[in-house]
Amino acid sequence: MNRQVLPAQVSAEDFDTAIAQCKEVVGPQWVFADQGPHLHAYLDRYPILDAALHAPSAAVAPKDVDQIRKILAIARHYRIPLWTVSTGRNLIYGGAAPRMAGCVVVDLKRMNRILEVNEKHAYAVVEPGVSYFDLYHHLRRIGSRLWIDCAAPGWGGVVGNTMDRGVGYTPYGDHFMAQCGMQVVLADGTVVDTAMGSVPGSAAAWTYKYGRGPWVDGMFTQGNYGIATRLGVHLMPEPPGYRAYMITLPREEDIEPFVDLMRPLKLNLVIPNAAVVVDLVLEAAISVTKAQYYTGKGPMPDSARRTMMTDLDLGAWNFYGALYGPDRLMDNNWALIRDTFSRIPGVRFHTEEQRGHEPAFAYRAKLMRGVPNMTEFSYVNWIPNGGHVAFAPMAPVNGATALKQYLLVKNRTNEYGFDYLGEYIVAWRDMYHIFVPVFDRDDPQERRRLYELLSLLVEEAAAAGYGEYRTHLDLMDQIAGTYSWNDNALLRFHQRLKDSLDPAGILAPGKSGIWPAWMRRP
Amino acid sequence: MNRQVLPAQVSAEDFDTAIAQCKEVVGPQWVFADQGPHLHAYLDRYPILDAALHAPSAAVAPKDVDQIRKILAIARHYRIPLWTVSTGRNLIYGGAAPRMAGCVVVDLKRMNRILEVNEKHAYAVVEPGVSYFDLYHHLRRIGSRLWIDCAAPGWGGVVGNTMDRGVGYTPYGDHFMAQCGMQVVLADGTVVDTAMGSVPGSAAAWTYKYGRGPWVDGMFTQGNYGIATRLGVHLMPEPPGYRAYMITLPREEDIEPFVDLMRPLKLNLVIPNAAVVVDLVLEAAISVTKAQYYTGKGPMPDSARRTMMTDLDLGAWNFYGALYGPDRLMDNNWALIRDTFSRIPGVRFHTEEQRGHEPAFAYRAKLMRGVPNMTEFSYVNWIPNGGHVAFAPMAPVNGATALKQYLLVKNRTNEYGFDYLGEYIVAWRDMYHIFVPVFDRDDPQERRRLYELLSLLVEEAAAAGYGEYRTHLDLMDQIAGTYSWNDNALLRFHQRLKDSLDPAGILAPGKSGIWPAWMRRP
Repeated sequence: MNRQVLPAQVSAEDFDTAIAQCKEVVGPQWVFADQGPHLHAYLDRYPILDAALHAPSAAVAPKDVDQIRKILAIARHYRIPLWTVSTGRNLIYGGAAPRMAGCVVVDLKRMNRILEVNEKHAYAVVEPGVSYFDLYHHLRRIGSRLWIDCAAPGWGGVVGNTMDRGVGYTPYGDHFMAQCGMQVVLADGTVVDTAMGSVPGSAAAWTYKYGRGPWVDGMFTQGNYGIATRLGVHLMPEPPGYRAYMITLPREEDIEPFVDLMRPLKLNLVIPNAAVVVDLVLEAAISVTKAQYYTGKGPMPDSARRTMMTDLDLGAWNFYGALYGPDRLMDNNWALIRDTFSRIPGVRFHTEEQRGHEPAFAYRAKLMRGVPNMTEFSYVNWIPNGGHVAFAPMAPVNGATALKQYLLVKNRTNEYGFDYLGEYIVAWRDMYHIFVPVFDRDDPQERRRLYELLSLLVEEAAAAGYGEYRTHLDLMDQIAGTYSWNDNALLRFHQRLKDSLDPAGILAPGKSGIWPAWMRRP
Repeated sequence: MNRQVLPAQVSAEDFDTAIAQCKEVVGPQWVFADQGPHLHAYLDRYPILDAALHAPSAAVAPKDVDQIRKILAIARHYRIPLWTVSTGRNLIYGGAAPRMAGCVVVDLKRMNRILEVNEKHAYAVVEPGVSYFDLYHHLRRIGSRLWIDCAAPGWGGVVGNTMDRGVGYTPYGDHFMAQCGMQVVLADGTVVDTAMGSVPGSAAAWTYKYGRGPWVDGMFTQGNYGIATRLGVHLMPEPPGYRAYMITLPREEDIEPFVDLMRPLKLNLVIPNAAVVVDLVLEAAISVTKAQYYTGKGPMPDSARRTMMTDLDLGAWNFYGALYGPDRLMDNNWALIRDTFSRIPGVRFHTEEQRGHEPAFAYRAKLMRGVPNMTEFSYVNWIPNGGHVAFAPMAPVNGATALKQYLLVKNRTNEYGFDYLGEYIVAWRDMYHIFVPVFDRDDPQERRRLYELLSLLVEEAAAAGYGEYRTHLDLMDQIAGTYSWNDNALLRFHQRLKDSLDPAGILAPGKSGIWPAWMRRP
């Protein structure tokens, strides 16, 4: 990684000129073009294949919209592809690294103002550099009674996560649903305030989501049609009461009846939050390492799993949900939840009083009330030198599907020598199945094997009708290819938008499988 | 209206050829090109200005996507502008009439299949011709325990209303939020299944809303980039209990404290449904006519208002909300609601047992549990030969704004000689202010005055930061012009999409102020 990386079809001379111009725009201290530690921060920390596939040529950190527009002008002139990140910390999907090597990363970390907190209407307006920690601490500092909904690692950004349609753990877990109001800079430098924000002095910009005319906010998510520079986000008023709980299920196959029993509770919001069903290993890996129970090669055998399960007093599945509201509502719902799931033999119910001191319960309880933390990262220590990546197919809240999808992934995973670590995040009618294999970062053969596994899983999932909601850089094209109905009509539609909105193809080439015309495979 | 209407810049000969070709596609009985009663059904029933401004040249009713594609090919060839309607019954905004005279209306009423009802996951999949009545009766027929959320007139269509981002009265009142999965035909005939529907055999097409990559569904709402031919819609499971209630407020200015007291109840879903605060006249006009209380010219004077209020036992404002859930939850929330609003002097609480027999209460109680009906239309009989139109600015759930917006509209309305009839539909953080003046359909001077009033209100509302969420055909351009931030950046963005996706400009020219390039004013 010491050679200079250049954008495709850009000469070293043009590149140097462009970088010099960028330095004039943002100040030399905010341009990172030397292949040193600064730029290394923009590499994929947990590459599946080779980090060089996603190595940026430089990074530039503008402080405002005006600087972004100037950078865009330079990029258009020299045809330099850019890759925008907000906080760039979602390491499981590639972090701050671009899909295509040679992109200049536009790092929005300096645009980190919290522009408004509205206590009355329960929303905030933030810039892309605002992390969950930032927003959370700001709210506490000003004495706000509003809750945030955060991603599991609290260093993630509100804007970046929302724009990538991430999911959290409170009743506001659907981050894009909680979004209201967006400012976006197009490739040509036009600044657009969407929806009600487009009415000058708008009274409802941050309270009414859709505005008038085509509602375009969604097309900027997971896409490369513009750079989001400001976002409104609805916040949850602190409820009068909160109780986290855990439910353990003794057998892997219990996921099927559990999910079926859960469906009406989710549909009717008896379980109002984005609750998680965590598998044994992911749950255990927060507190222990694999070596404590198994030192052999390949996936942990059943005997060791059973010992670990007993030792840690865990289930094959471990469900975390929460109650919100006045005591009598929580009492009512808790009784209903216990009644419902008691039909599963061996099910056990655990409260925060009982187990809140355990690291896994503690951080889950925090997440479900919007307290950001970094505990979840602990599971990468499952094996020495561990890295992680996510494979995330969607499912309806349906027991048979949950079991089938789990077995599909788990069996192949074990076959390829990895442990299954994963969870279902249950939203409303839908579940995010987040499979997070842990692998040895420095073992190229293991990473190659992992890539083959993931690639096979994409195909097998698609054959069963399962599409992923989000993906690591290395799988973007393949997964885009599985959204293929009618000769890839949706992808062709995306490409058409791309050609219209970014004819020079400078914005995030390859994001979600959308390439500018000249980079497309025929 | 007896002369033949032709699309702009299309010769009579080309038009006749195109119509003949359309007849070959759909059968002659499904093409209406003679200026007779059939085509009159596609005129604006309640025109503000002149119905001829929105007179179609013909209407054609395809039975499936294949026929739509063939109609599109004909339209592209002869450059004939089309205007799509689903059921075309939203008479308050122009009904089935096109924005631009001479368009051929593509009437999707024959595509009226209910493709799926999924009891387990609580959704339905419908074609555009399915009305709320259709879906409701189908659900009852099959013994479903799912509720719909309908527009006030039950003859409206599920797809059309959702695509126009309409609002209902149950907890699923935000129709576009409840949408999940869309099929759309682009101007070039490409059929796109959006989101998860793009995965062949998708397991989560109707349960997970966003899919992967840019989520484009929103850009087809209130727009003219494609024709929606299928929609998934999430339905509410029948709750264990339901109670409608009404709260009356004695004074106009009570709207301010009422809305402020309501805000936390809405934010925390103690009032979970899209509830309405109805003004005296709109409420009264369901049961009585103006002439019963006042036969003079101009707006009803305060003395007559007071008499009517007392006679009918109404408030200056009349709030309808509902409780959903088990009895103890409803008891809890009802106590909280009564406690909260009791702070307003003179407030009174009314239950369905007490007043459910009254027409206004009865139909509101139906709407809040998703039972479609046509009662609301009664208010057009407020004056003889009455017509109606809606002016609908948005507001945050904020008392001062509610009062200010009301007074702005009411004072101007009275000044122009009309009564104020209106309501606030309170969603979550936002309120739809629906002002619905009733006017004499056959009095051109009165209609001209009404147009001047509405036009002035658009400007005055915009100056105060209020944008309309939806509009009648006659105000589309003006209202589009108020979403003007940064030199109309959003409108220019919409135009760019239009040029890319529909270069011939055949789809719904002028919808939401979006015109094809060759029809734009410079």
